[in-house]
Amino acid sequence: MNTADLGLPVDVPSTALFTDQYELTMVRAALKAGTAGRRSVFEVFTRRLPDGRRYGVVAGTGRVLDAVENFRFDPGVLRFLREKGIVDEETLDWLADYRFSGDIWGYPEGEVYFPGSPVMRVEGSFAECVLLETVVLSILNHDSAIAAAASRMSSAAGDRPLIEMGARRTHELSAVAAARAAYIGGFATTSDLAAGFRYNIPTVGTSAHAFSLLHDSERDAFRAQVDSLGSGTTLLVDTYDVTEAVRTAVEVAGPQLGAVRIDSGDLLLVAHRVRQQLDELGATGTKIVVTSDLDEYAIASLAAAPVDAYGVGTQLVTGSGHPTASMVYKLVARAESADPRAPLVPVAKKSAGGKTSVGGRKWAARRLDEHGVAEAEVIGTGEVPGDLADRQLLVKLVEGGEVIAREPLDVVRDRHAAARAGLPLSATQLSRGEPVLPTEYAHGPSGS
Amino acid sequence: MNTADLGLPVDVPSTALFTDQYELTMVRAALKAGTAGRRSVFEVFTRRLPDGRRYGVVAGTGRVLDAVENFRFDPGVLRFLREKGIVDEETLDWLADYRFSGDIWGYPEGEVYFPGSPVMRVEGSFAECVLLETVVLSILNHDSAIAAAASRMSSAAGDRPLIEMGARRTHELSAVAAARAAYIGGFATTSDLAAGFRYNIPTVGTSAHAFSLLHDSERDAFRAQVDSLGSGTTLLVDTYDVTEAVRTAVEVAGPQLGAVRIDSGDLLLVAHRVRQQLDELGATGTKIVVTSDLDEYAIASLAAAPVDAYGVGTQLVTGSGHPTASMVYKLVARAESADPRAPLVPVAKKSAGGKTSVGGRKWAARRLDEHGVAEAEVIGTGEVPGDLADRQLLVKLVEGGEVIAREPLDVVRDRHAAARAGLPLSATQLSRGEPVLPTEYAHGPSGS
Repeated sequence: MNTADLGLPVDVPSTALFTDQYELTMVRAALKAGTAGRRSVFEVFTRRLPDGRRYGVVAGTGRVLDAVENFRFDPGVLRFLREKGIVDEETLDWLADYRFSGDIWGYPEGEVYFPGSPVMRVEGSFAECVLLETVVLSILNHDSAIAAAASRMSSAAGDRPLIEMGARRTHELSAVAAARAAYIGGFATTSDLAAGFRYNIPTVGTSAHAFSLLHDSERDAFRAQVDSLGSGTTLLVDTYDVTEAVRTAVEVAGPQLGAVRIDSGDLLLVAHRVRQQLDELGATGTKIVVTSDLDEYAIASLAAAPVDAYGVGTQLVTGSGHPTASMVYKLVARAESADPRAPLVPVAKKSAGGKTSVGGRKWAARRLDEHGVAEAEVIGTGEVPGDLADRQLLVKLVEGGEVIAREPLDVVRDRHAAARAGLPLSATQLSRGEPVLPTEYAHGPSGS
Repeated sequence: MNTADLGLPVDVPSTALFTDQYELTMVRAALKAGTAGRRSVFEVFTRRLPDGRRYGVVAGTGRVLDAVENFRFDPGVLRFLREKGIVDEETLDWLADYRFSGDIWGYPEGEVYFPGSPVMRVEGSFAECVLLETVVLSILNHDSAIAAAASRMSSAAGDRPLIEMGARRTHELSAVAAARAAYIGGFATTSDLAAGFRYNIPTVGTSAHAFSLLHDSERDAFRAQVDSLGSGTTLLVDTYDVTEAVRTAVEVAGPQLGAVRIDSGDLLLVAHRVRQQLDELGATGTKIVVTSDLDEYAIASLAAAPVDAYGVGTQLVTGSGHPTASMVYKLVARAESADPRAPLVPVAKKSAGGKTSVGGRKWAARRLDEHGVAEAEVIGTGEVPGDLADRQLLVKLVEGGEVIAREPLDVVRDRHAAARAGLPLSATQLSRGEPVLPTEYAHGPSGS
């Protein structure tokens, strides 16, 4: 079953207005000046990783492909642009026929990246490419930020499953994308039904404190839950007194009780006590789930505790301190004229202020050391050196406007695990540090 | 023209899946136990403001009302829930008929709030109210976080207009809600066309560095832009050399040039130099817009600079360090039985761990001092003291399932400005501090 076909709670019919106005005014001015058709190359990259982070995680690529496919100016949108006077009639005509017809290359989704990595490259006419700036960046900046946090958490959690439960802490549709990014980063499940619906991510969830408080006693609440969901359910044991609740839970559900959830208190201490109590009650198979304001550090600090699964909310959906990946979308080369055969000229902003870019259409490759471990992110323009030819990172995602590289989310998730495993061991240290791979420019940065 | 009718790029046909799975399993278990119909009161509040913040800003209320109205389980959604085995047939039947039929009260949108303020109260049967938890919190937590940052920025900017331009740094639909929240917080315009389309917020934008780089010279680029958009446009002057660009800009557009934009460098220094140069060139009416990684502190530090408008991106859409408002949705009272006349019993979580709540259906009022300045947020259960009766904060938003309090965004924006102006002066200090009003419990917290 393709759950994406079931309905539209998270799809949108057009993505064309996820656009900053200046993209349309640039198209308008370029159409008038005769420069709109110049062949252009835009690249997405970040100048730095969030402070202290060792690697970034590319996420959102699949959503970018959907957005590019749905980037259409329908009559209602065109009417809005006309009424607001944002573009002129010539531009409206051009927009009415808009369909991206160029090529898009990118790091495969789930790959890791470093400062300067050209994680996506968009090629076509200036006008058709410049329009995609905002929607491409929105998606990649958000999803990559969440996936990076998720990756750190999943590496801290080791073999224990992580539950994404942050929907309530972020915009309702960010939440769906966040669940997707978390899954890529190694989370096992989500509480967000829209994410289950849209992306087929496994969903979980049983009850909240409100359910215990609704009933005349905790015992009544547990009985109601077990009657309805079976003894394999997860009972929330910290509404009143944890020790009493655990005793009641096992009495009501029997020693085959699936799990108990602890949502407050000193989790290390409480988990040990609850494990001991469960074992004494014969519920040796009953699992312990903890869910209180966790981040990657809290998860790591519970490594020695008898915890079976972690639920993570706020810190996941807010990128654990870094809610955006600060990627930019920059013109790096363009033709000298609108002639399709005109050669490309590298371009880059030259002004002061630390925002310089490296011009030219770039390749990227990851060089390995003699043990097969990644040792450098190598970026260059022109020919790829022979020894790096089969280590190239960019793959073609869109060709002549057609998406050619859609893939299941599980493939992306596995790719991320493999990419992370290929980095030096220090990549998964949680402590602040430099990017775990240096970025090398094969021919020297031409634009800085 | 009601732009909301033009199409659906940001609307969704159903909000019913913006729901954590446990809400559905609780309904399922409560239906079976016969407790689903117990009259219940849920309240939304936050236990604390983000560290150092002086006040919070209620935003998202209007979006909550839309979400509640659209909260329907259509056949595709029901099929998904059945196939995944999340609920049973009895629950599916109940969900198929779902329509919220209760009452919702809340702080009017744009109002300020403090720790414990019951910013929203949802009343109805347990089942119909518990389902709204996630979508209500997603919206209020996101939008209020953005509005709080916007309010600090607009207070730092004084009379100078603020442009919201953060779409590229956050999820594409968060961006639309963020533009709305920014407007409430005092921003003047947005770059995000979807926000203009959906909420009729004024949009702005002219060109990026890519437009200068596309052309054979900066002069060509400026001429193309002025030819298309007129001399009142804003020219971006930091692609190559700022001084040269300003000279070229005035040559091309004439002294009636609308504005120049500076996006990098030491803005304080550069703005002074550019102002002097513009004045010397006779472009005394040409404005200066700055747009480089601004937050409320950077805005405040430019108060003495000859800057006419600020564009703010990343720090606005990420809540300037606090991307979520950490509001919670808690059952505070419920009936003793499913009998509609059964009295309400206050309830609250009792367990340790700092997550205790105050039980009971609450009122809230803001007490003023003898000068008419707010001096305390007073919260209580039961009767409202006579002297506070006309200072109550909660208004009815939904009655018997019908939305009764929709209002234009400009009303909300004005309300926020008035509410902020009614706080002690220290409210708008940017430095870290305690909430500017203490929260007082009129009858003492009954549940802590």
